[in-house]
Formats: sequence, C-alpha cells, structure tokens
Amino acid sequence: MAKAPVLTPQADDFPRWYQDLINKAELADNGPVRGTMVIRPYGYGLWERMQQDMDARIKSAGAQNAYFPLFIPQSYLTREAEHVEGFAPELAVVTHGGGKELDEPIVVRPTSETIINEYFSKWIQSYRDLPLLINQWANVVRWELRPRLFLRTTEFLWQEGHTAHATFEDARAYAARIHREVYADFMENVLAIDVVLGRKTAKERFAGAINTLTLEGMMGDGKALQMGTSHELGQNFAKAFNTQYLSKDSTQELVWQTSWGSSTRMLGGLVMVHGDDNGLRVPPRLAHVQVVVLAIKDDEAVVAKVREIGDTLRAAGLKVVVDDRTDTPFGRRAVDWELKGVPVRVEIGPRDLEAGTAMLARRIPGGKAPVAIDSLVSLLPTVLEEDQAQLLRESRERRTSRTVDVATIDEAAEAAATGWARIPWADLGPEGEAKLAEQGVSVRCLVAEDGSVPLADDAPGTIAVVARAY
Amino acid sequence: MAKAPVLTPQADDFPRWYQDLINKAELADNGPVRGTMVIRPYGYGLWERMQQDMDARIKSAGAQNAYFPLFIPQSYLTREAEHVEGFAPELAVVTHGGGKELDEPIVVRPTSETIINEYFSKWIQSYRDLPLLINQWANVVRWELRPRLFLRTTEFLWQEGHTAHATFEDARAYAARIHREVYADFMENVLAIDVVLGRKTAKERFAGAINTLTLEGMMGDGKALQMGTSHELGQNFAKAFNTQYLSKDSTQELVWQTSWGSSTRMLGGLVMVHGDDNGLRVPPRLAHVQVVVLAIKDDEAVVAKVREIGDTLRAAGLKVVVDDRTDTPFGRRAVDWELKGVPVRVEIGPRDLEAGTAMLARRIPGGKAPVAIDSLVSLLPTVLEEDQAQLLRESRERRTSRTVDVATIDEAAEAAATGWARIPWADLGPEGEAKLAEQGVSVRCLVAEDGSVPLADDAPGTIAVVARAY
Repeated sequence: MAKAPVLTPQADDFPRWYQDLINKAELADNGPVRGTMVIRPYGYGLWERMQQDMDARIKSAGAQNAYFPLFIPQSYLTREAEHVEGFAPELAVVTHGGGKELDEPIVVRPTSETIINEYFSKWIQSYRDLPLLINQWANVVRWELRPRLFLRTTEFLWQEGHTAHATFEDARAYAARIHREVYADFMENVLAIDVVLGRKTAKERFAGAINTLTLEGMMGDGKALQMGTSHELGQNFAKAFNTQYLSKDSTQELVWQTSWGSSTRMLGGLVMVHGDDNGLRVPPRLAHVQVVVLAIKDDEAVVAKVREIGDTLRAAGLKVVVDDRTDTPFGRRAVDWELKGVPVRVEIGPRDLEAGTAMLARRIPGGKAPVAIDSLVSLLPTVLEEDQAQLLRESRERRTSRTVDVATIDEAAEAAATGWARIPWADLGPEGEAKLAEQGVSVRCLVAEDGSVPLADDAPGTIAVVARAY
Repeated sequence: MAKAPVLTPQADDFPRWYQDLINKAELADNGPVRGTMVIRPYGYGLWERMQQDMDARIKSAGAQNAYFPLFIPQSYLTREAEHVEGFAPELAVVTHGGGKELDEPIVVRPTSETIINEYFSKWIQSYRDLPLLINQWANVVRWELRPRLFLRTTEFLWQEGHTAHATFEDARAYAARIHREVYADFMENVLAIDVVLGRKTAKERFAGAINTLTLEGMMGDGKALQMGTSHELGQNFAKAFNTQYLSKDSTQELVWQTSWGSSTRMLGGLVMVHGDDNGLRVPPRLAHVQVVVLAIKDDEAVVAKVREIGDTLRAAGLKVVVDDRTDTPFGRRAVDWELKGVPVRVEIGPRDLEAGTAMLARRIPGGKAPVAIDSLVSLLPTVLEEDQAQLLRESRERRTSRTVDVATIDEAAEAAATGWARIPWADLGPEGEAKLAEQGVSVRCLVAEDGSVPLADDAPGTIAVVARAY
C-alpha cells in the first residue's frame, strides 16, 4: 500500500503544497486579523539567522542601526506626491488613542522614508555629517487583500536602510553596493538562491524613487519572487523634508538619498526555491539546526550515546539538536525533521551502537548510509558544504534551463507560463509591458547582456526579464 | 571664568538633567506622535547589547523566540476581565485599513498574553508539549499621557516571555528562575545596577496575574524604577482561552502560565543610575564602545598611530572606535565622548607619540594619566573590569545608604522624599499602602528579612519597600 503523501505534491497544486509545508513544518500560522501571521519558533529561528548574517553585512557596509516610531502622522505621507499615491491604498490608520478620538489620524508605518527624513533634516547640518547611513529592523504594515504567508502579509518584519549622501554619484554607488555586497552575496552564499540583479522599469519602481534595483529569484513553479530592493531616491524626499547640508563651499545643498529593504518574504522564497514534496530543505549555512541526532529507541545506552554525540558535534562548531523524545514513534519524528528540512540526520539504535556506526540520512541529496560514529566530526562539515553547493547549483540550473530568449510579446507571454523570458527592452518598451500586464505577466527587471545592471532603461542592449510573479 | 556646564546639573533639576543628557549624548529624540521616540544609533547600540546578552540568557533558560502579530482583535482583550480593565485606557485602536472602515476595531498590542493564548490553545495538545517556553522581541503600544523618553513612551521595545506548564509549581519555579537568572543576574553583572528582588502587592500586580515578581533599582535622585517583571498568571488566561492539555492520566487539564518582560525602559535606568553632571557612564560589559582612541591633532604620524592602536586593541577583543576626525576641535570631541560615557579614552598627540605614551582618560573613576602605548593591551581589560565593579559598588552603596527602616506611615512618607523606606508589611497593609499612594509614594515590593522573595503577601516577617517611583 502506498503511503499517503505528507504534503500535497508540488505538481498537483503548488500554492497548496506551499501552504501545507508552512503549516506542517511549523514555520508559521495565519494570524487572527486578516493577513497577519504568527511566525513559529522553527520559522523564526530561520529569520533570526537571516538577521544575524545580514546585520553583520549591513554593518560592514558602514550603516548603524537605529529605531524610528511605528506611528507616523498622516500629514507626513502626503508630502511626497508619488509616495502617498503608492501607499495610501495600503494604510492602516489609528483614529483612537487612550480612549479618545485623535485630532490627527496616525498611520502605522508602511515604510519609513518620511519619518526618517524628518529627523535627517534635523541631524544633518554640514558635509561632515555625510554620508549618514542608518538601518532599522522593524515591523511594517501594508493592508493586503490577497494575503499569503510570508509572501504578502499585512504585517511583516524587515530591515530598511536609509542613507543620505552629498552627491548623486555617492548615493548611486551606495545603493549598488547594498544591492550586490549585502543582498546578492547573502542570497547566493547563505540562502543558496540564484538571483538575477537588475533595475526596475519606471512602472515597477518604488513610489518616490528615481531608480529601483532588484533581486529576482525563480521559484519551484517557474514564477519570480522579488527578494529585495535597493532604491535611489534622488532628492525627492530631501525636497519634501528640506534635508539640506552646508557644503565645503558654504552653500546649502539638498542631500541625495537611498533606501533598501529585505523582509520575511525571503522565508517564502526559501520554501519555494528549496522545498520538495517531502518538505523544506534548509541550506546548511542558514540552518539554525544543521544536524539532528536521533535516538531510535528508548534504550539507556542509545540515549546516552546520542547526547554524547550531540555534545561532541556542538563542540566542533555544528548547530545540533538531540532528539531523544523516544515516547514519540521514531518514524513520526524522522518525517517531522524531514519536513523541517534539517540537512543531516544522525540516527542511532541499539544495533548501530554495537557496530560503532550511525545511519546518516541526508535531506538534500537524499539517501541514507551507515557511517562510523568516530568519523562524524570530520565528515559532517564536508557534507554540509556539499549540500550548500548543491542547493545553489539546483537553483541556478532551474533558472537557466527555464529561461528562454524570445523576440515577440506573444512568445514572452507563452514562456511565462512555465518560466522566464528575456526580450530586448527596445522591442518591448512600456507599451509591450502594459500588454503583458493584461495577461498577468510583468517585467521583473532590466539587465545588460553581460549580466551587469544597466544605468538607464534605454541603455543600448538592455534586456527585459519577464515572468509571472508572486 | 567658569565653563558653562554641558548639562543642567543633577542637583539643580534632575528631570531636566535627564532630558538634557539623553538629547546631548544622542541617545534618543522625541517622535512626532506624542509619546513616541526615535532611538538614535548610540542609544540603539546600547539596546542591541542588552538584547544580545539577554537573548542568550533567555535561550539558556530553554525559551525559543517567535513572533506574534502587532494587531489583536479587540474582542480578545475582553476575555480576561482584569486584563482588559488594566489595559483598556491605554489602547491605540485601528479603525481603518486599506481605505475602508473595519468591521471589528483592531487593537495595537499593549502586551501579547491574549493573542499568544489563542495559539497556545491550538498548539498544546498533550503533556508532551509542556512546558512550552516562548519569547518575543517586539514593539508594544500603551497610550501615555505623561511621556518621558525611555521611561514612559507610547511605543517601546521589549521582550515578552510567555510560558505554559503542567503544574502550578513548575510555573512558579520558572517565573522565579527568569526573575533571578535572567533579569537580576543581567542587571547586576552587565548593567552594574543593584536591584532589589521582591513581589508586588495585590494593588501593583500585572492585570491578570496571580503574582508579580519585580526588580527595583534606585535612581540617582533616590526614586525607584521598576526594571523588569516576571508574572505568575495562574490559570486566568488558560480559562479565558481554554488552553488545556491531555495529562498522562488522560484527563484534560488547564495549563499554568507565566509571562515576563523587560524593555527599553532599562536604558532610562542606566542613565539615572550611572549618569553624572558630565553625562552618561556606560558599564564596560554593556558598552558597544569600550575604548575610543583619539588623535588630538591632524598629524600624519598621529593619525597612523591611533589607527594602529585601534587595530591592536580590537584584535585583543576590545570594542574600539578610532576618532581621527581632526577637522572637529579635540576639546569638543572629548566632551562628546564624555557625554556618551565611553569608559576609556586613549588620547594621542605629537608629543605623546615622541614619548611612546598616550593619555589615558577614565570616565568612571575620573582622571587622566600618561601610560606607555605598549602597555595598553595588557592594561585596559583590567581597567575595564575595575570600572565595571566600581559602578555596581556605587549603585549598591547608594541604595543601602539611602534606605532606612521605619516604623510608621509618616516616617515612610518622609523617607521617600530622598530615598527608600522599609516597613513591616503587617504594620502597613493595603490601608497604609492607600494612604501612602495619596502622597505619591508606593510599595515597590515586598521582601523577606533574609533578602529572599516571600511566597505570599502575608508571609511572616515580610517587609514593604516604599518609595516614589518613575
């Protein structure tokens, strides 16, 4: 008799597989208020690792963390015309506080450009104060009509960077630095997700930006996910908030700004890139549990041994959980760790103990084989690096094999049913972009032939990458 | 001519000194919405260090981090009668989302007992799921009519722990463990703040708790600050949310719960305990900047040397900033670092360089003396540990010297003008407590003669510690 699958198979219904996995791997639950989410400990552990790694990269890029208020006076948002137009439909509004109706309604931050500029305009006096490089880890709220866990939630967690510079060139270089050194490097080398770096078209730009750099990942179903963005804001917010500095030549000048963000949405990307019909597969460099050591049976010597192995592996710098909950059947526990995507399981029963071996189950390439217990410390680091490399390779292969070069809008739309299409932007243009949008297909980004990011939409040889997107 | 003081002296106007220090040391600014705050990078760096240290302690106590939504349906709060009575006057309410009026108003979380119990009741099935130990780092909102930066703000940052246990005894032991191992140990050994551990009277208890454990610190003006609390919730929320488990005997039982929190308020305590008329003094174990190495003049050899010393000290594990901003006058920079309370300044000019010495300025004991540059690596760790010990000693001496044993309510009220009073709870009681309250004096906590925490208000020999409080 065939076992009933733990999850709806991806091939049957990808969105349902996604929802199944998130619930059964205990990553998150829907919150009681529509569109909100509860991030459960296993899912939050992944987010904590993302935070730790990204935070170090952000600090290496010279930014300092700070914290700005959740509550923004509604009037702030209206100061930058495009910005308010973009965000007004998504706002949550506080009208009552402390038992009274408020004089001015308060907006729950959807992003913090406005409130941060209010303070930048006070803090920045002279060229000596520039560049001012600030980051914050925070929750933001954008009302979602079609919520999906991690991908589109009314409240989500993110980091948002906000910087002010003396020149256009310095701001542009910093936005590009974050795009590549912080985001792309983290996504490829830690999340093991292949990303395409490009610029957004005018239609897809952040509300208030003069340029938006993006990182697009291909999900398991061939759709695209925007994994992070880095914006050049030009002087739009500086004008709206009068953010000026005294130059070396004693003239008052408006600053040039950037902002950039990445969020818990990356957790959704992680699931949709690396997950399979048995659950999640967590890249070892991200994993907060790299190895689980399981006692198969309630046997005193076995339990003592798994604990000892746990200590030894931890001392060797690995992130280890010991699972000696022998009052739960072994099979159920093994399936659960598989669902959660822990890269390596070390399984030990009485017979293994006698032979001095353990069963090594590898989640990423799959398969099980006995290994000498004494070899684990030297073996596992290599195994984990192999697994990390395999995940990135698979992600890259999926993107290259499911991306096609096309010449017409119809071909592009057709290709987007199963993957991505590349079409010269000169042949597509804003009109072709609008036509594709009618069919639910968007220009994910513009790239140059050599893989670099074009400095303008109309740079010669610019290619549009088009796809359906989350 | 006497120099104008940088800050309003403490003795002239303690609240104004506090506000001055927070602004001039660049710890925080008032936010635009009444009662909110902007935590600036230097202040946020202190909070990050608090988070890192506390987070490790919380995890050592077995709790895992998770994240619950900011938005709570208003109906949840009303389920526990005392809880809603306590929090209703402080709520911020969202009535509009996505451009529409909402069917049910949403509350911005003032604390998360209700929403967390909604999920605990789903997640907890059997005794095997207990204890369930959860913590979250989050922002919360409580409408403040008399806000003061860090001490009482409409929005603040905190951690809130929420746990469920099979028995009353287990819950009680866990609340006590957090109280002592996480909070008290952190406050004394990292913040260098002497705290009195006790239980709150019924009047001062958390809304919905059966017992509240507190840690009270004495500020520089002799007033008390509640630095953190750990609550036994009994089965109050379990009843309201039907949070049950199947026992080993196959009966359905309500869980026993705890919750516990500490917040950015600790930053206010840090300032009021360790600050002096020249600014903040940061305990070295907390400091994100332990040492600043200053170039006195714009001299090539000097600048090269301070950078070299910075690298050497960093390699030795110290947290170092190199200040080579020689386009700002040295005196101004020195005053600024003093305001910020960096424990050690290493100052170097051309003459020092010639002599192979640096001027070592110590913020905590005060004073300056030349030391050999080569001795810094071996000298500074000892200096910093001395400074750490001094701050705790001063904090402890202040509390003991300004606490008096009294016999009557009038004496207690009088003593509270300048410090704390201890009076037998049997002599004071709820009626005496009410009388003191009329004079702005409260029972901060109940303690036992031997310094332990009484297990009941009416335990024999219980002493009330009374004071004015922030």
